[in-house]
Amino acid sequence: MNIPKRFRFSAVNAGVKSPDVKRADMGLVFCEEQAMLSGVFTRNRVKAAPVVIGQELVGRGTARAVLANAGNANACTGDQGIHDARFLMGTAARELGVKSDEVVPLSTGVIGVRLPVERMASRIPALVSELGDDPEVFARAIMTTDTFPKIVSRSAGNAAVLGMAKGAGMIAPDMATTLALVLTDAVVSKQELDTMLKRSIEHTFNAITIDGDMSTNDTLLGLSSNQVTENISEIEKGIAEVIRDLALLLVRDGEGATKFVTIAVEGAANERDAKKAAMSVANSLLVKTALFGADPNWGRILAALGYSGVAFLPEQVFIDISGHRVVERGMESDGFSENTLHALLKEREITIGIRMGHGPGAFTSYTSDLSYDYVKINSEYRT
Amino acid sequence: MNIPKRFRFSAVNAGVKSPDVKRADMGLVFCEEQAMLSGVFTRNRVKAAPVVIGQELVGRGTARAVLANAGNANACTGDQGIHDARFLMGTAARELGVKSDEVVPLSTGVIGVRLPVERMASRIPALVSELGDDPEVFARAIMTTDTFPKIVSRSAGNAAVLGMAKGAGMIAPDMATTLALVLTDAVVSKQELDTMLKRSIEHTFNAITIDGDMSTNDTLLGLSSNQVTENISEIEKGIAEVIRDLALLLVRDGEGATKFVTIAVEGAANERDAKKAAMSVANSLLVKTALFGADPNWGRILAALGYSGVAFLPEQVFIDISGHRVVERGMESDGFSENTLHALLKEREITIGIRMGHGPGAFTSYTSDLSYDYVKINSEYRT
Repeated sequence: MNIPKRFRFSAVNAGVKSPDVKRADMGLVFCEEQAMLSGVFTRNRVKAAPVVIGQELVGRGTARAVLANAGNANACTGDQGIHDARFLMGTAARELGVKSDEVVPLSTGVIGVRLPVERMASRIPALVSELGDDPEVFARAIMTTDTFPKIVSRSAGNAAVLGMAKGAGMIAPDMATTLALVLTDAVVSKQELDTMLKRSIEHTFNAITIDGDMSTNDTLLGLSSNQVTENISEIEKGIAEVIRDLALLLVRDGEGATKFVTIAVEGAANERDAKKAAMSVANSLLVKTALFGADPNWGRILAALGYSGVAFLPEQVFIDISGHRVVERGMESDGFSENTLHALLKEREITIGIRMGHGPGAFTSYTSDLSYDYVKINSEYRT
Repeated sequence: MNIPKRFRFSAVNAGVKSPDVKRADMGLVFCEEQAMLSGVFTRNRVKAAPVVIGQELVGRGTARAVLANAGNANACTGDQGIHDARFLMGTAARELGVKSDEVVPLSTGVIGVRLPVERMASRIPALVSELGDDPEVFARAIMTTDTFPKIVSRSAGNAAVLGMAKGAGMIAPDMATTLALVLTDAVVSKQELDTMLKRSIEHTFNAITIDGDMSTNDTLLGLSSNQVTENISEIEKGIAEVIRDLALLLVRDGEGATKFVTIAVEGAANERDAKKAAMSVANSLLVKTALFGADPNWGRILAALGYSGVAFLPEQVFIDISGHRVVERGMESDGFSENTLHALLKEREITIGIRMGHGPGAFTSYTSDLSYDYVKINSEYRT
């Protein structure tokens, strides 16, 4: 694994959700240098306390640490939530010997419940003393319904780029992350880092959807320890690849997902239309349940295109599913075979290629299917 | 039951989906007089052949019969689909002794497959000879995944209003009907009937959602046999009530639904915002799965408001669930009890009251929960 220089990692159990939860649920990333800080946040109007604070810190542009927890989103907690987050930032800052506003808070989990700040604060000395070289401990500490930690690394010339994220549910375009971190040791300016993050998310985090629900806590942070001078396009490429890989890992671990579905739209009037069409198909419950059951019911795809709000002529539409021509000029293709399509839909990886017309607009979205387990995961009430 | 004068009904088995399907799947409504005809259709850009033809006939303004089938939507069937529909209209017209363009076609079922026109045409004489007084035979013939026929009637002074619909899935706002018919014997002009339908659907068919998927075939037809002179406001009230009751029956029979959920938003800047907010909550998979599992996770409602695209201040939001105050000024209410909410959510009828701020905008939407059975119904592949 390529670990960017000067970053260290740790995790502890703090019983965030309840004292009975024994797995690591609080994590720390520490940078031994002042790091450049960038970030992109949820566009949900209901913003969690750590999002409000994080936006302020990103505006300032530097940081030394990221303090994260799973099990509690610190959202819809009002001024108390802001106060609680700042109290933990202060506690961590004192232990680390940095300033309070150099610690970026990240939270994910249940909405509307106060953080157990005393219990969490009491574990911060251990969190600091356990800082080490293994980023996976952090990636594991931010997991909620995730079934595996999301961690990706790449070299960017001599520099390194490392990404970590948690995902699984409440995943929708417009910062579909819940929480993600991209760390690098490349020398970059604040402005360069901002630009790289913004460019990278458009076709990655903003192109994935699991359930269409946008969280109150979505945050992607970028930090650089500025140790290695490298060609700027090399760095951007590394960051873009790490972000793309993280986004696709989120889809692969979608709540209850049994399939990974790529929806590639082309021939739309412009990219905006192509994106609307791709997302309409990706979010259709009828398409997602058909994918789950390998039901060769291609009409559902056309219907979802039709209500996407995009203008097009149905008689110009072609649809291929995993290479099999299904729709030709808006109707069932001559070579269509229900058995062939049924077999292709049983695969774990499915590609839906849609040509809407003759325009230059193209966009690719990524989604998962909708299974019994999605309903199970999200409906079971656990006291 | 109040049956409008001069209308007659029948249904036969025509093996529309396959010759093995033995239930009634083709239905006829006949008006012994020339009826005024009005209609509202899907806004999906992919329109089934009967929708294309129906829009043309409604433009003309009169009709004598409605010929409907379940099991095949006659959608994405190109010019052949139009030709097939016209062939059946012609066959029925000859048997009934009316003109071909006085027979309005309605189809619902699988997309992209040609109608078995020979088999269907051969059953039309029986359909005509069996015309009688029982509308329920027609309501049953248009059922697909419905678990009960939707049939409603009311008096409107001395006049009668009768409504029939099929629903269950692919139910979303903007003509969320699949198929619905409203019949009356009141004397109305074409323009009056058009206005009544348009006004009535805004807070009924356009306020319900089961899965957010808008069908290619959604159609609501209004026919009047012009037999009974009655006060116009009385007639409009009767029609509005029948349409509202039909819409709510569709939600009650939502695919896999275990709950009937009313979402009443008030205090928005205007009605448009209130509707967007109400629909965002109604369509949230996380809200719908929480309702299914009686999970007292009210944060999901606030999150869905937050990504609805409506501007509001979270600290002005109040939420009551079935009368229990859950959220006060964007935070958990002081009197909130998880056990109370859990118990209320176990009921079959749930009301979510949301005050977004101090504006005059209000809107009420209706939805069902998302259960294992929704996934089952829509994912099972039946050859």
